Amino acid sequence: MREIGKQEIEDIAVGAALLGTGGGGDPYIGKLMALQAIEEHGPVTVLDLDEVPDDALVVPSSMMGAPTVMLEKIPSGEEAIEAFQKLEEYLGKKIYATFPIEAGGVNSMLPFALAARLGLPVIDADGMGRAFPELQMVTFYLDGISATPAVIADEKGNTAVLSTIDNVWTERIARAATIQMGGSVMNAMYSMTGKNLKESGIRNILKLEEEIGRTIRLAKANNVNAIQEVLKTVGGFELFRGKVTDINRKTETGFARGVATFEGVGEYKNETLQLRFQNEHLLAQTEKRLLCVTPDLIAVLDAETGLPITTEGIRYGSRCVVIGIPCHPKWRTEKGIETVGPKYFGYDVDYIPVEELVHKEVTK
Amino acid sequence: MREIGKQEIEDIAVGAALLGTGGGGDPYIGKLMALQAIEEHGPVTVLDLDEVPDDALVVPSSMMGAPTVMLEKIPSGEEAIEAFQKLEEYLGKKIYATFPIEAGGVNSMLPFALAARLGLPVIDADGMGRAFPELQMVTFYLDGISATPAVIADEKGNTAVLSTIDNVWTERIARAATIQMGGSVMNAMYSMTGKNLKESGIRNILKLEEEIGRTIRLAKANNVNAIQEVLKTVGGFELFRGKVTDINRKTETGFARGVATFEGVGEYKNETLQLRFQNEHLLAQTEKRLLCVTPDLIAVLDAETGLPITTEGIRYGSRCVVIGIPCHPKWRTEKGIETVGPKYFGYDVDYIPVEELVHKEVTK
Repeated sequence: MREIGKQEIEDIAVGAALLGTGGGGDPYIGKLMALQAIEEHGPVTVLDLDEVPDDALVVPSSMMGAPTVMLEKIPSGEEAIEAFQKLEEYLGKKIYATFPIEAGGVNSMLPFALAARLGLPVIDADGMGRAFPELQMVTFYLDGISATPAVIADEKGNTAVLSTIDNVWTERIARAATIQMGGSVMNAMYSMTGKNLKESGIRNILKLEEEIGRTIRLAKANNVNAIQEVLKTVGGFELFRGKVTDINRKTETGFARGVATFEGVGEYKNETLQLRFQNEHLLAQTEKRLLCVTPDLIAVLDAETGLPITTEGIRYGSRCVVIGIPCHPKWRTEKGIETVGPKYFGYDVDYIPVEELVHKEVTK
Repeated sequence: MREIGKQEIEDIAVGAALLGTGGGGDPYIGKLMALQAIEEHGPVTVLDLDEVPDDALVVPSSMMGAPTVMLEKIPSGEEAIEAFQKLEEYLGKKIYATFPIEAGGVNSMLPFALAARLGLPVIDADGMGRAFPELQMVTFYLDGISATPAVIADEKGNTAVLSTIDNVWTERIARAATIQMGGSVMNAMYSMTGKNLKESGIRNILKLEEEIGRTIRLAKANNVNAIQEVLKTVGGFELFRGKVTDINRKTETGFARGVATFEGVGEYKNETLQLRFQNEHLLAQTEKRLLCVTPDLIAVLDAETGLPITTEGIRYGSRCVVIGIPCHPKWRTEKGIETVGPKYFGYDVDYIPVEELVHKEVTK
C-alpha cells in the first residue's frame, strides 16, 4: 500500500503514454483529470495486487471512443461515477477498488481521478500491459472473464447496461452505442473478484509506468541518455531513428487509423519506416525488414527528450526513435495472437516476437 | 374482459396491418407467432383499459428494426420473454399485463404471442393508433412518459438496459445497438402504471382492428364492397385508385425507405400518385394535389379484396385503392406534429388534416 500524489501521477502518465504505444488517448488530458481530482480530494492509495481480498468486487474505470474525439469532449468525471453507481446498483454490491484496464494516456489516469473522488483505492494491475483499441483485447478475455454486466455512460446522462453472450458482442454493441453517444463514453465493465484479477491481471503496471516516467524525467539531470535508460527499464530494443516525412490519419468507425512515414537518419539513412496504427501503433516495417508487430509494443519517442509521442502527436519533421518492447507472455499464446495479432487488424504478416526480429537483423 | 382465440387473431391482424399503413412488419409473420403461441398455451384474455388497476405495472411488448430484416430473422419468442424478465429484475416488480405499442403487422401480434406464453392479459390500448418508425413516436412521449429503463434483447442472448435523458436518445442508442444486434430486437420499454396508460394510451385499438378485419372478411359473403365498408368502419376517405407502375425501396440505417408510383384508373385516369414511405406510408400526392400526409393514416388496399398491402407487398402491376384516415387528435397537437409531422420526416409540406385536403379537392 502506498500513496500516489502529484509527482507520481506525472511520472505514471509519461510511462503509461509510452506503454500506450501511441494510443490510449492524450496523456495531458488524463493527467489533468487525475491531478485535479487529487488536488480536490487528496492523494490516492495504491494497493499491491496481493493486498486485495479474494472476494472483493473490483472494477476498472475506463473510457471508450476515439482519442481524437476525446480531445474535444473531455469527460467531467460525473460519467465515471454514474457508471460505477449504476453497476453497484445492478450487482447489489459495493465496489472495493478500481484499477486501469490498460496502459495509455487517458485510461491509466482515469482510475486515479475516479478513486480520488470516490475515496477508493487503485490496484497496481491492468488487463493489457499496454493499450489496445477494442474492449475484448484484455487478458481477462483470454482467461474467460465476462465484460458484462457492462455499463456505459455519456456526459449527457445517458447510460446502457449490456449483458452479452461474449466480450466481442460487448465490443460491437458498446461501440455502436458510443458513436451515437457522441464518440466517447465512460465504462464500468469487466467487474471481477480480487481472485480473478490476481489470476488474470498484469501485475505492477503502475510501478513500471512510474519508473519509466522517473527515468525520463531524471535522465537530463543525471546526464544520461533517456532512451537508453528507458530501454533498460522496459527490456526493449531500438528499432529505428528517423524524421517524420508523412503522416496520414483519419477517424473512422470510432478509431484513429493511419500510417506515419519516417526517413532514416544515421545508421538507418537508406531506409524508410512505415508505422501503421489503429489508435495504437501496430506494425513497423521498412522496405526490407519487418521490425515489430502487435502484440509486441511499438513506441515512438522524441529523439532528444525521450518522451513518448502519441499518434496524434506525430508531426511532420519530428525527429524520433522508434522502440520495440516484448509484450506480456499472455499475448503470445494462440488465443492471444488470435485476439490481438497482426491478422486480426488486417495485416497479412505472421507474428514474430520482436526479439527474434531484432536478432534477425543483427545476424544479417 | 374477453378471450381472444384464433379467429379474433386473424381479424385483428388484418385490421392492424391496415392501421399500420404499410409498416409495422409483415402481418403474416406476426399472426403466425401469435397463433402458434395460442395453439400451445390457449386463448389470451384481453382487458378493457378501465379494468386495469391504476398502480399495476404494464409494459408493451414490441420489436424494433427494419421489417425487411425481420422477414429473414423471425423472433423465436424467447427474446421477448428475456426482455420482460430483465425489466422485472431491474425494476424489482412483476409486470401485470402487456399491450401493443402500435398498430401494425408484427407489433400488434407480438403482445399476444408473449401473453399466451407468460399467462399475462393484453390490454386493449396502444400508443399510436397506427404505426410509426421511431420509438419516441408514441402518445406516451407527448405525455412525458419515459421510455426507460428500456430493455432490448436479441435472439443470440445479448441484452441492453438503457437509461436515457429523453426518449429521442433512447431511439438513437437503441437503433444503433439494434443494427449491431442483427437488425431487429425485442423491446421491453415504456413501462408505466395503469393510470399512465389510461391517461395517455389510445383506447379500444384491438376492437377497432378486429372490426376492420371482420368487415373485410365478411364483405364478400355479405356481397358488399369491402373498401366502402372499411371506410365507414374507420371514418376514412378514398384518396386514389390506380395501378403500381414503379416501386423503389431500400433498407438504410435500419429503415425501409422508398416511393411507390401509381397510375390512376377511372376518375383518377389522368393523374399519377406518388406514395412516400419510411417503414410506414407518410405522404401521398399527385402532380396537382397533396392527398394525405403524416400523422394522418395512408393505407393501400387491394382493389378487389380490400386487404391491406404493406410497403414490402407493393408489386408492379397491383391494382390498389389508397385511403386516408384521420389520426388520433393527440397527434394533431403542436408537439404531435413536431414529433411525427411531415417536416420531421424531411418532407417540405405543412400538415393539413386529411378531411380538409379531401374537402379541397371536392370544392376545386
